[in-house]
Amino acid sequence: MHALVIEESLRLTDIPRPHRAPGQALIRVRLAGICNTDLELIRGYMNFGGVPGHEFVGEVVECDPPGWAGRRVTGEINAGCGACRWCRAGLRRHCPGRTVLGIAENQGAFAEYIVLPEENLHAVPDHLSDRRAVFAEPLAAALEILEQVHLPPETTILVIGDGKLGLLVAQVLRQSCPAVSLLGRHPEKLAMVAPFDIRTYGPQAPPAGPFDVVVEASGSPAGWEQAVGLVRPRGTLILKSTFAGAARLNLAPVVINEITVVGSRCGPFGPALDWLAGGRIDPEPMIHAVLPLADYEKAFALARASGTLKILFDLS
Amino acid sequence: MHALVIEESLRLTDIPRPHRAPGQALIRVRLAGICNTDLELIRGYMNFGGVPGHEFVGEVVECDPPGWAGRRVTGEINAGCGACRWCRAGLRRHCPGRTVLGIAENQGAFAEYIVLPEENLHAVPDHLSDRRAVFAEPLAAALEILEQVHLPPETTILVIGDGKLGLLVAQVLRQSCPAVSLLGRHPEKLAMVAPFDIRTYGPQAPPAGPFDVVVEASGSPAGWEQAVGLVRPRGTLILKSTFAGAARLNLAPVVINEITVVGSRCGPFGPALDWLAGGRIDPEPMIHAVLPLADYEKAFALARASGTLKILFDLS
Repeated sequence: MHALVIEESLRLTDIPRPHRAPGQALIRVRLAGICNTDLELIRGYMNFGGVPGHEFVGEVVECDPPGWAGRRVTGEINAGCGACRWCRAGLRRHCPGRTVLGIAENQGAFAEYIVLPEENLHAVPDHLSDRRAVFAEPLAAALEILEQVHLPPETTILVIGDGKLGLLVAQVLRQSCPAVSLLGRHPEKLAMVAPFDIRTYGPQAPPAGPFDVVVEASGSPAGWEQAVGLVRPRGTLILKSTFAGAARLNLAPVVINEITVVGSRCGPFGPALDWLAGGRIDPEPMIHAVLPLADYEKAFALARASGTLKILFDLS
Repeated sequence: MHALVIEESLRLTDIPRPHRAPGQALIRVRLAGICNTDLELIRGYMNFGGVPGHEFVGEVVECDPPGWAGRRVTGEINAGCGACRWCRAGLRRHCPGRTVLGIAENQGAFAEYIVLPEENLHAVPDHLSDRRAVFAEPLAAALEILEQVHLPPETTILVIGDGKLGLLVAQVLRQSCPAVSLLGRHPEKLAMVAPFDIRTYGPQAPPAGPFDVVVEASGSPAGWEQAVGLVRPRGTLILKSTFAGAARLNLAPVVINEITVVGSRCGPFGPALDWLAGGRIDPEPMIHAVLPLADYEKAFALARASGTLKILFDLS
């Protein structure tokens, strides 16, 4: 099958179709999204070698239980051992022996076929388009914040970073709290959330703060410094993005202002699909281009460019 | 009056007695402790210039309300404006305009006299010795953890750092949770908590973990890395000490394992004096030497040495 493979650099090649073990589903990928994590993997994050890609919509080709074959699905990307305390507590995404689709020990969705455990599958509602359903994974990551932190309606919130994740996070949190602000660098991206009554700020005129909650979604050490400076004493800083490698960071303000920093990663797919199907979030305007796998060089160049948002691969 | 002053380096000199404003108490210092923060201040932390020292027991000399004069006191080190939202919420130690005794805008206790707002004073119970009461400030900092984080008895806890604060934190937490471990570098310091049924580990054989809660009290970037590696997914890392300046730190594990990092600083003096008066904690074994102010060079050399714990100045 055709697949994009990271082997030092990224290239399009032919590799064997992945093997489906019992309990797993073989899925034909229809649409896959490029995430910033993919860009980091290419730069060496996690020392990943193999097929990247973890945002997808596909169609089940083979599966043990009847009823799944032919269905449109997306799927949770973490597969646990099923036996450890994390898996037993329903937190298989924290299983120490987990595989992660396109990130750790499981070939990802920039390929014609993938395998995932059946329990990871989520059926895509019939009326929900592939183009929207492919956002289930990043939207779930945004919704994870609501699972971790209690946000009373009066909470003042600043989201730092107007990338894909920052835009989704701002829109999600705005549905719980009226006072949501977004600090970014791209006027055209900031403009996308203005209709939802989200206050936007550019780098020349950042907000004065302080905010009860600041979400760091810029993925840069500068975003961390800004977040620490704009969260109130005893406030909460939600760390939503990783940087590849260590950076020079000053933790003293965390101690002095008794800030709580909450690391936040993957989230629940069920609610994400509900939000998308119910139209609570419309990610369509974030799609910048849909390209075939063969145009991967153009696709990644676009994904790296500062003005673009979501780039999708059409594999259907 | 005699005072130790940081002006580029530290020296003993004569400076005017501090001026007592209405609402403040003038206090004659009897005993004062050297804290690691004082060593950091001398190294340039906070760009502090003036008299350091914030752990003290003294005697009230002058004060507006009757009844305080002549009493033995210790005192909270943060003085707020009294009007802002933090002060009104009883959190004057987070007032943005606060002064901090011996740390920010208020001359500290390595001097014959200090001034503090009357509301900061805590009377020392008659039967509590100066040598124990002088630990109210660091013990309050350890007790702050109990104010911030709920610790059910089954919580497994690792404290990293066998300095003064780490030893106090381990002893405090052991009274809530049976499973407390301490990781340090000094066999003689680790031995001090062994009688309290605290498991101790040296650097050659650190515990395997993971722990529900890890308290970073070593004050070193290496301690941070170790803490991040030993706390379980979705666990809590309590950051109890600051390092002067930025350090190269990797925040990715905080996100990947969805760790909650809780910055923790000064704590409540009332409970600290209760614990000391009731004998729940006996800090006496931590006293390494009591010296006059004139021996400050020897005192700070001892405080910096790796094997020592608390060094006190006797100003009585």
